[in-house]
Amino acid sequence: MNDNAVEAAIAAVRADVALLHGELVRYGLVVWTGGNVSGRVPGTDYFVIKPSGVAYDDLTPDNMILCTLDGEVVPGTPGSERSPSSDTAAHAYVYREMPEVGGVVHTHSSYAVAWAARGEEIPCVITGMADEFGGPIPVGPFAVIGDDSIGRGIVETLRGHRSRAVLMRNHGPFTIGVTAKDAVKAAVMCEDAARSVHLARQAGEVIPIPQEKIDALYARYQNVYGQQEDERR
Amino acid sequence: MNDNAVEAAIAAVRADVALLHGELVRYGLVVWTGGNVSGRVPGTDYFVIKPSGVAYDDLTPDNMILCTLDGEVVPGTPGSERSPSSDTAAHAYVYREMPEVGGVVHTHSSYAVAWAARGEEIPCVITGMADEFGGPIPVGPFAVIGDDSIGRGIVETLRGHRSRAVLMRNHGPFTIGVTAKDAVKAAVMCEDAARSVHLARQAGEVIPIPQEKIDALYARYQNVYGQQEDERR
Amino acid sequence: MNDNAVEAAIAAVRADVALLHGELVRYGLVVWTGGNVSGRVPGTDYFVIKPSGVAYDDLTPDNMILCTLDGEVVPGTPGSERSPSSDTAAHAYVYREMPEVGGVVHTHSSYAVAWAARGEEIPCVITGMADEFGGPIPVGPFAVIGDDSIGRGIVETLRGHRSRAVLMRNHGPFTIGVTAKDAVKAAVMCEDAARSVHLARQAGEVIPIPQEKIDALYARYQNVYGQQEDERR
Amino acid sequence: MNDNAVEAAIAAVRADVALLHGELVRYGLVVWTGGNVSGRVPGTDYFVIKPSGVAYDDLTPDNMILCTLDGEVVPGTPGSERSPSSDTAAHAYVYREMPEVGGVVHTHSSYAVAWAARGEEIPCVITGMADEFGGPIPVGPFAVIGDDSIGRGIVETLRGHRSRAVLMRNHGPFTIGVTAKDAVKAAVMCEDAARSVHLARQAGEVIPIPQEKIDALYARYQNVYGQQEDERR
Repeated sequence: MNDNAVEAAIAAVRADVALLHGELVRYGLVVWTGGNVSGRVPGTDYFVIKPSGVAYDDLTPDNMILCTLDGEVVPGTPGSERSPSSDTAAHAYVYREMPEVGGVVHTHSSYAVAWAARGEEIPCVITGMADEFGGPIPVGPFAVIGDDSIGRGIVETLRGHRSRAVLMRNHGPFTIGVTAKDAVKAAVMCEDAARSVHLARQAGEVIPIPQEKIDALYARYQNVYGQQEDERR
Repeated sequence: MNDNAVEAAIAAVRADVALLHGELVRYGLVVWTGGNVSGRVPGTDYFVIKPSGVAYDDLTPDNMILCTLDGEVVPGTPGSERSPSSDTAAHAYVYREMPEVGGVVHTHSSYAVAWAARGEEIPCVITGMADEFGGPIPVGPFAVIGDDSIGRGIVETLRGHRSRAVLMRNHGPFTIGVTAKDAVKAAVMCEDAARSVHLARQAGEVIPIPQEKIDALYARYQNVYGQQEDERR
Repeated sequence: MNDNAVEAAIAAVRADVALLHGELVRYGLVVWTGGNVSGRVPGTDYFVIKPSGVAYDDLTPDNMILCTLDGEVVPGTPGSERSPSSDTAAHAYVYREMPEVGGVVHTHSSYAVAWAARGEEIPCVITGMADEFGGPIPVGPFAVIGDDSIGRGIVETLRGHRSRAVLMRNHGPFTIGVTAKDAVKAAVMCEDAARSVHLARQAGEVIPIPQEKIDALYARYQNVYGQQEDERR
Repeated sequence: MNDNAVEAAIAAVRADVALLHGELVRYGLVVWTGGNVSGRVPGTDYFVIKPSGVAYDDLTPDNMILCTLDGEVVPGTPGSERSPSSDTAAHAYVYREMPEVGGVVHTHSSYAVAWAARGEEIPCVITGMADEFGGPIPVGPFAVIGDDSIGRGIVETLRGHRSRAVLMRNHGPFTIGVTAKDAVKAAVMCEDAARSVHLARQAGEVIPIPQEKIDALYARYQNVYGQQEDERR
C-alpha cells in the first residue's frame, strides 16, 4: 500500500470505530465511559481504538486513537494527545496473536457480567446462540490490567473455539470479529443470549439442544445468512 | 384485480411492512438484524417480507422483498437482488396453509424466548392475556431451518387455537394476524405477557383465572374492543 | 360557570389528558394502545378520557372523548364519533363515588401486574413508598369488564385508604389523584415501588419500616413536598 | 475571590448541576421529580441544588437554587422563590463535614434500593466495582427526613471509606464526588454494580475477588484512568 492508501484505510477505520460505539449505547451495553471498540486497519500494522474516559456523545473519527500492534499510540496523529482505552494492551495482544481478527469489543453489559461473576459459561439452549456462537459462550481466566494476562486469557479461550465471545471471569465480555462491526454484533448477541438464558433458568429447567442440531444451525448461519458483505464488512 | 390494482396493493403492503418493523425496535423485541415481519398482498398470491441481514434503520418500502406463496423471490421487483429473511419459508408455509392469515411476525424477544427454552406454555393468569389470546400461549415443536418443519410446527400449533402466538421450542415466538399490523400487535402483547407472568411467578404462586371468565373476556375483546378498522387493518 | 367557562375548562382538560398519556409511554407503563388516563372537568359533571384502540402517537386534545359521569359519550363533541376507552365505565364509577378524585389512570405495567397476578399487596419497605402511598399498595377484587364491578372494586379498596393505587387482582393497577397529573404520578410511582420491592425480595428478606416512621414520612410528604401547585394541579 | 469571580463560579455550577440531572434520566436512575444533584461552588460557602418537585424537562441553570452550607436558600438569587430539594439538609451536612466533597447525588434507582431494603451491602465481585469503589458498597443507617440524621448517616458511613456510594437503609443510594459530575458518575456506577451483582447472585454462587487484587485494581484506577481533567472536573 502506498501512503495515500494507508491514510484512506486509517480514515475509514476511524470513522467506522467512532460510529460503532453508538451501537453499544443503543443496546444498553455500556454506561458512562465504560466499554470500547477497536478495529484493525487492513493491510497495516495499526489498529484504531477509543480514547480513555471520553463520553460516548463526544466520540468522533478524529479523537479515536491510532496504535501500533504493540499497543503504542502513534505520535503526531489525530487524538494522540490523549490516552487510549485502558484496555488497549488486551486489544493489541489479540491483534498480534490472531491475524484473522479485524475487530475487538469490550463491555460490562449486565447479564454477561453476571455469568462472568459466577465463572459460568452460557449454555447453548436457544437456536439464536447456535446460529451465532455455535455452542456455549465460554469463560476465560481471572486476569487484571497491567500486563498481557487479559489478552492472553482471551486468545487462549477463543483460539480454535467457535464462539466470538468470552466472559472474562469476574470482569465481563470481550468479543472478536472479522471486522469491528462483526465484533460489535457479537457483543450485542452475547448480551442478548446472556439475558434470555438467565431468564429461562430463573423459572425452571431449560431443554438442551442436541449437539448435531447446534452444529447444523451454526454451519448454515456461517454460510448463508444475510447479505454477506453488509453483515460482516 | 387488474395490474394497476395489484401494483397498488403491493406498494401499500411494502410501505406497511417496512414501517411495522419499527414497532419491533420500539418495543425492544429485536436486536441487530434479527426478527422479521411479513404481510400478504390481499387478493394476490404474494407476500412481502424483510430482506435478510439488513439493519432496521435501513429498511424502506423499496428494499422489502416480494415473494410468491412458495417463498420464491419475484425476479425483477424492487429488492429482489437481495436475499429475503432466512425465515421466509416458514412465513410462506403459513400463508399457504392458513388463508385467513394476513401477517406473520418472528422475533427473539427475551422473555418469550425464556419460556421457549424451557418448552413451557405461558399460563393465562392475567386478564390482558385473556383478552388478547383467549388462554395460554402454546409451545410448538423443536424445528430447524432448512425445510418446512418450522412452518408446519406453527400451523399445527395455531390452527384452531385462539392464540395468535406460538413459542417455538428453544427458538422463540412466531405470531400471526389478520394483517401484518395485527401480527405485530400479537408479538408485542406476547412479550408483554411473557414478562408479566415470568415476574409474577418469580415471587410466588399465581392465582388462576376461571375458564369461563377467560372465555367471556376473550369473546368481548374480539367483538367490541377498539376502533375496529384502525386496530386490525 | 357560564358556557364559555365550561368550554375553556373542557379544552384545558382535553389538552392535559392528551399530553399526560405521553408520560405512560415515557415510563414504559404501557404497550401498543393499552392503558388510559382520564381527568374530571372541574366544576362540571363531565370527564375526558382516551379513545379506545388509538395509538399513543396519534392522541391529540381533539380526539380525547368527553363523557358524562354515567360514562356516556357527549354527542356532537370532538372525538365523539369514536368509542371511548373500554375502561370508561370504571372511571365513571370512580368519579361518581369519589368527588374528591380529579383523575384516574389504568395501566398493565409489568411489575404491578405481577403482584396483581399473585393477589399480593406490595409491602411498604422503602421510604419512597411511605412518602407517596403511606403504607402498602392494596389488592382489589377480581372483576371483569361489563358492569360496575371494576369501578366498585376500586372504590371499595381505596375509599379511606392512604394509597392512591390499587392492584386489581389478575388485572393490573388503577390509580387516582386530585388531578389527572396526580393520578399519572401515582401510576409511575406504583410501578417503581412494585419493581424495587420485587427486586428486593428476590434476593432475601426485606427489613420492615416501623409504622410510626411510615406515618411520619407520609404526613410530611403530603404537607411539605414540592412546589404544591406544580406538583398536583 | 472578588464578586465577579464568585458570580462566575456560581453560574458555572448552576449550568453544570442543571445539565447533570439529565444523566440521571438518561441512565434511568430517577422517575418523575425524584432524585437530586448538588454541586459545591468552589472557593465559597455555597452549593447549588435542584428545586423540589420540578420536572426534569424543566430544569435550567436559573431555577437551580443557591444555598449556604447550612442549607438555607440565599434570598434574592435566581430560583430562590422556590423550595430547594427536600434532601437539601442532607447535602448541606455532607458539604459541612467533608470539605473534600464537591458534589452529592441522591436517587431511588431500583437495584440499589433493592439492596437498601434488605440492608445488605453490595459485595465487590466484579472488577468494575473494584476499580470504581475499591470494595463493597456499604449500607448506612435507617434515617428519616427532618433533622441531620440522613446527612450524619452518610458521613459516618463514607468518611474514611473507599466507596463514594452509600445505600441508606430502606431508602436508597447517596453518592459523593470531588465534583458534581464525579458524584453523578458514582450514582451511575452504583446502580450498574447493584444490577450486575443482583443478577449474578440470582443464578448461583458468585466467586469472590481476592482482596489484594481489589486493592491493586482500585489503586490503578484512581491514578491512571481516563483523561483526568475531563473525568472528574
